[in-house]
Amino acid sequence: MSQAKINRQWILKARPKGPVDEKCFEWRESEIPKPADGEVLVRNLMLSFDPTQRGWMTMDTYVPMIPLGEVMRAGSIGQVVESKKEGFAKGDLVQGAFGWQDYAATSGGGVMPMSKLPPGTQPNLAMGVLGITGLTAYFGTLEIGLPQKGETFVVSGAAGATGSVAGMIAKLKGCRVIGIAGGEAKCKWLEGEGGFDAAIDYKHEDVAKRLHELCPNGIDIYFDNVGGAILDAVLAQIAPKARIILCGAISGYEQSDLPPGPANYFNMVLKHGRMEGFLVLDYLSKFHEGIAQLATWHAEGKIVQLEDIQEGLENAPRTFMRLFSGANMGKQLLRIADPE
Amino acid sequence: MSQAKINRQWILKARPKGPVDEKCFEWRESEIPKPADGEVLVRNLMLSFDPTQRGWMTMDTYVPMIPLGEVMRAGSIGQVVESKKEGFAKGDLVQGAFGWQDYAATSGGGVMPMSKLPPGTQPNLAMGVLGITGLTAYFGTLEIGLPQKGETFVVSGAAGATGSVAGMIAKLKGCRVIGIAGGEAKCKWLEGEGGFDAAIDYKHEDVAKRLHELCPNGIDIYFDNVGGAILDAVLAQIAPKARIILCGAISGYEQSDLPPGPANYFNMVLKHGRMEGFLVLDYLSKFHEGIAQLATWHAEGKIVQLEDIQEGLENAPRTFMRLFSGANMGKQLLRIADPE
Repeated sequence: MSQAKINRQWILKARPKGPVDEKCFEWRESEIPKPADGEVLVRNLMLSFDPTQRGWMTMDTYVPMIPLGEVMRAGSIGQVVESKKEGFAKGDLVQGAFGWQDYAATSGGGVMPMSKLPPGTQPNLAMGVLGITGLTAYFGTLEIGLPQKGETFVVSGAAGATGSVAGMIAKLKGCRVIGIAGGEAKCKWLEGEGGFDAAIDYKHEDVAKRLHELCPNGIDIYFDNVGGAILDAVLAQIAPKARIILCGAISGYEQSDLPPGPANYFNMVLKHGRMEGFLVLDYLSKFHEGIAQLATWHAEGKIVQLEDIQEGLENAPRTFMRLFSGANMGKQLLRIADPE
Repeated sequence: MSQAKINRQWILKARPKGPVDEKCFEWRESEIPKPADGEVLVRNLMLSFDPTQRGWMTMDTYVPMIPLGEVMRAGSIGQVVESKKEGFAKGDLVQGAFGWQDYAATSGGGVMPMSKLPPGTQPNLAMGVLGITGLTAYFGTLEIGLPQKGETFVVSGAAGATGSVAGMIAKLKGCRVIGIAGGEAKCKWLEGEGGFDAAIDYKHEDVAKRLHELCPNGIDIYFDNVGGAILDAVLAQIAPKARIILCGAISGYEQSDLPPGPANYFNMVLKHGRMEGFLVLDYLSKFHEGIAQLATWHAEGKIVQLEDIQEGLENAPRTFMRLFSGANMGKQLLRIADPE
């Protein structure tokens, strides 16, 4: 790892009103900070990009809004360059919210407390199927979806980081799994390596019609990553006692006004449907169990990581925007440096 | 009971496109039918009016749509005038869907199977707190709402048949209960005889603002009878792990186009909210338990029936329309005849 002489940073300059664009961020070159007593200096290796970060830019949610003028917040994995904190040593791999910059001096507290990773951890997996992304799919699918063998499971954003893993977990539980994604390449991956029973290309197919063909007995479980018109199309076709897992609504994040809610929600009365939202942090006490299970499945080849790794901190805003244009396939990551 | 010579009937003539009006129905005078073998002739005593009947007029739901040209379907209680059916005798009180007419000859099957009631049953109670209405409140509140002592419970349509009982049951379970209703008289009843902790008059008060004042820690349970803007106002103020009980959406029944869904549904992600719909028939196997409990509470004076009894079959359409204008307080009934 070449020791840079400066700390390159992306500052949050303006809050997006509609779609995120590069003008929301400002490039800055600062001195590399010096860790105070009780702090470590971390060199960022890889950044994670997640739809929820769009929420952090404009509102207080489960975490406070990112202040203007501060480094753009993002989960990341880095390596300790210098430690003045007990329990951490030079060379340690650490995970936290070190943000869009080369270096962070931190005591490890705050929004996403710093944790030490085992030597040899692969950053892409630790922020993907074996990290928050995988856990989101895991708890949403199992704890809210309660999948039973033979049920029909539909997931939107199916070629995304969370959606792809959710579908694979439902498949492991014996469901018929249908993914909704945008474009031929994504659908081809889902029906091939992803192991899905079928995929619907929402950019080129009539989603309601295809769901009707593919789910003749209705949809038992729906893992929603997008909201909007697709959520409505699904609600119109739920089976009795259907479960709707609300994970996020990427179609809504970029709108400055609140979009209309799902008009077909009333079908939940007729079908005794249940819709439940969650944040992965709700399951903090079970993270250990989840990661162990995901790691086992991954090692056995039963779940695979679909990922999109871009290169170079200068590309952070453009990489973030890939999430909202749907350019990414799977977990969106940005490599900044390699571990020493 | 004066034995009429004709059978007066209200026929469904046209399906409403927007609000129900009298032109949807046609008055007809027919001969009194003769029961065939295996049938009884029932004299209708009292009709029940329920928002769900608006749905029956325009769409197949959990029961088939009412055919045009047939008697308007409604739950009712009647008395057997002549029986050619085993197990039923002249004078028996029976409950079923005998419709908007004086007499029905029926084998007792169909959409709402006929059942015999104990002698001395009060029709208003058997179709109110001790019937489907009470059971709807009972199962929605207890099985979906899961009320805990000290929680904040909000119910809309609170001076309606179901809403009033739901609030009283939540109160029995130790919740702080807030009712939303239209007009001073209804709110006064709720805060007085109804035993609610507070009432919000949505016709004259800012519901969101009042909810904010009355529920400083958010809303734990919401029993929704109306949908629309009030559902949205509640969703914006749910507490962590809130439960939303979807019972019906009277504000939506009268719209010819599907109204927008609740835009604030996304707050369920941030708060781990759960929204669940149900039909009372989902709990058929537990009806016996529910009625026994409701009857005990009613006998002890812990729940009371709020009711609005109109008179005369000729007023059936106008009585039905009272539900949608909000003219009724409590269970809407129409007396047609007295038992012999």
